Amino acid sequence: MTKTKQNIMLTPGPTPLPPEVLAALSRPILHHRTEAFGEMFQFVLDAMQRAYMTKNRVLMASASGTGAMESAVVNLLSPGDEALVYSTGAFGDRFAAILKAYGLSPVVISEEWGHAAKAEKISDALKRHPKTKVVFLQHTDTSTGVLNDIKDLAAAVHANSQAVIVVDAVSSLAAEEFRMDEWGVDVTLTASQKGLMNAPGLAFAAISERAWTLVQSARLPKFYFDWKTYDRSLKARETPYTPAVAMVAAQAEALKLIEKIGLEGMWKRTAELADYTRTWARKNGLAIFAKDPAHILTGVRLPEGVDGSAMLAEILREEGISIADGQLSLKGKIVRIAHMGYISRADLDAGFVALEKRLAEVQAA
Amino acid sequence: MTKTKQNIMLTPGPTPLPPEVLAALSRPILHHRTEAFGEMFQFVLDAMQRAYMTKNRVLMASASGTGAMESAVVNLLSPGDEALVYSTGAFGDRFAAILKAYGLSPVVISEEWGHAAKAEKISDALKRHPKTKVVFLQHTDTSTGVLNDIKDLAAAVHANSQAVIVVDAVSSLAAEEFRMDEWGVDVTLTASQKGLMNAPGLAFAAISERAWTLVQSARLPKFYFDWKTYDRSLKARETPYTPAVAMVAAQAEALKLIEKIGLEGMWKRTAELADYTRTWARKNGLAIFAKDPAHILTGVRLPEGVDGSAMLAEILREEGISIADGQLSLKGKIVRIAHMGYISRADLDAGFVALEKRLAEVQAA
Repeated sequence: MTKTKQNIMLTPGPTPLPPEVLAALSRPILHHRTEAFGEMFQFVLDAMQRAYMTKNRVLMASASGTGAMESAVVNLLSPGDEALVYSTGAFGDRFAAILKAYGLSPVVISEEWGHAAKAEKISDALKRHPKTKVVFLQHTDTSTGVLNDIKDLAAAVHANSQAVIVVDAVSSLAAEEFRMDEWGVDVTLTASQKGLMNAPGLAFAAISERAWTLVQSARLPKFYFDWKTYDRSLKARETPYTPAVAMVAAQAEALKLIEKIGLEGMWKRTAELADYTRTWARKNGLAIFAKDPAHILTGVRLPEGVDGSAMLAEILREEGISIADGQLSLKGKIVRIAHMGYISRADLDAGFVALEKRLAEVQAA
Repeated sequence: MTKTKQNIMLTPGPTPLPPEVLAALSRPILHHRTEAFGEMFQFVLDAMQRAYMTKNRVLMASASGTGAMESAVVNLLSPGDEALVYSTGAFGDRFAAILKAYGLSPVVISEEWGHAAKAEKISDALKRHPKTKVVFLQHTDTSTGVLNDIKDLAAAVHANSQAVIVVDAVSSLAAEEFRMDEWGVDVTLTASQKGLMNAPGLAFAAISERAWTLVQSARLPKFYFDWKTYDRSLKARETPYTPAVAMVAAQAEALKLIEKIGLEGMWKRTAELADYTRTWARKNGLAIFAKDPAHILTGVRLPEGVDGSAMLAEILREEGISIADGQLSLKGKIVRIAHMGYISRADLDAGFVALEKRLAEVQAA
């Protein structure tokens, strides 16, 4: 247990929730086959279209972001299909793992962690693999805080192939500039607990008509994540299986807040927190990990010899502040400070003070 | 919108929530890789073992009950395997649909809706299909309110085969007598929003060692629902993917309430509400639909000529009381009144008054 009652989260999902969203979570439960739920659910889907900047259909399932990623794989592909994954972090690798779990052999290209995907490399890969049916990209990856230029990458796909483009925007949607239709993205995946300022538990997919033609012929097996079933329920403003109704109520409140600030206002807010964090890091002689950084998260390199994992555990225990450790080979070597959702400048200040104190102690020792 | 602010739910999931559970939903979000979350999650898993009456491992995913059902199919079976489904309602049929979605050809035996499964029929089917690897049963089915004698059915399976027994206890767990280990059940599935008195969004599976040997060789494709991944995360008291943390906090509170009342106390409570409802129905000349009724739900037949769907819509609109309609061929012909979870006698009374009023109007017309 922490010594303090404080609970400050600088983590890239779950993120802290606005009080209006917390309040919605604790409203008496609605039954999911009622007009009142239907109205709320329809608002969520409509507002999600606006957040995605798309005119395409939006589907919702009760699951984590990984469930959304799996749904794209099983609804777009058939056994033997060719797929291309361009991985720029742990979540890009996850696309490849899901494809392999379903018996496919994706072509995987990747960049060193922290470096953005390059359009030329996609063009080359598509020329070598002209039968590629689906290209899997990530907008941002919270394992490193990298940003990929989806507009540029999507243009490279369209210039070289008919492949459908799937983008993982789990950590970026409503927090970092993303224009689904304008940029020519076919499927965009996201989840409730990051830029969408809700608790974890809901997964969303926006799906273009071009992608829907693949959906109609895709033969990988599926049931819970079968998009056609969700699509059929939309007419009745329902989901096929009992949805996480409390989470839907909370998502409606969070989307109202997002629309009040406006999408561009949200993007600007994230960018300001990123600037603020990077100014602090530079002042403290700490390098930013990502060569091509996103606004949603700053990965900060720790000085040699600092045990980041122990330091973050102490900060959580003593100050009640959650800051994310590095993942896999970066464990203990970077700290990841998130900027999406309801994270505030005051939250960041508290985190900075806690980090500075421990870093000074290490340097004095 | 309803004309009233009242929101009384007599529906078999989602069910109304105790105030302590609603309050837990709106507590500030915890990060899922912290000691505080780990402690809470471990309590939930331990209390779920007690609710299942099992010493077996319990896994949790963020999904609906259908997700739990799919997880049992994909984690126990391989292409070409033989499986037996004994269906006694809409949710039994769903097991068959999931198996078919994954390319299997299950043997399906069934009973007329409202009638319980019979041990002799299982014995016969297993003799005809000696290679059956998994038998899928339902404890109760909310489409009809039927109760199956799992103790008796499981004994028939064990007497005739080595097949692993999967039981859908989504609507019964913690509400109706169920003794997993004593009755020889291998896998028991449930979800948060019924007897467990939480909002919808969490799915649970308890899995015996005998079933786990199948898990280790099962080759149906899976990723999000791969039990081995969840099992590996248990050591760190974590889930592999960001869980619905608010729902876990709420589940911990609900399980504390269940343990305070005691499992037998919960079963008794459900039985009393069932008796109360059936006494009311008889007094009003209304027949109970299920020939072999469970305690968790009473399906009440409406008199000929009554349009149940319109009546229930009016009750929801005018009184703010949600009562479930019949499903499929029973739509408009029965009403389904639930007794599990936090439903109270006062909630039932409100529903009875609303139903009596409309039935009297119809009879006077």
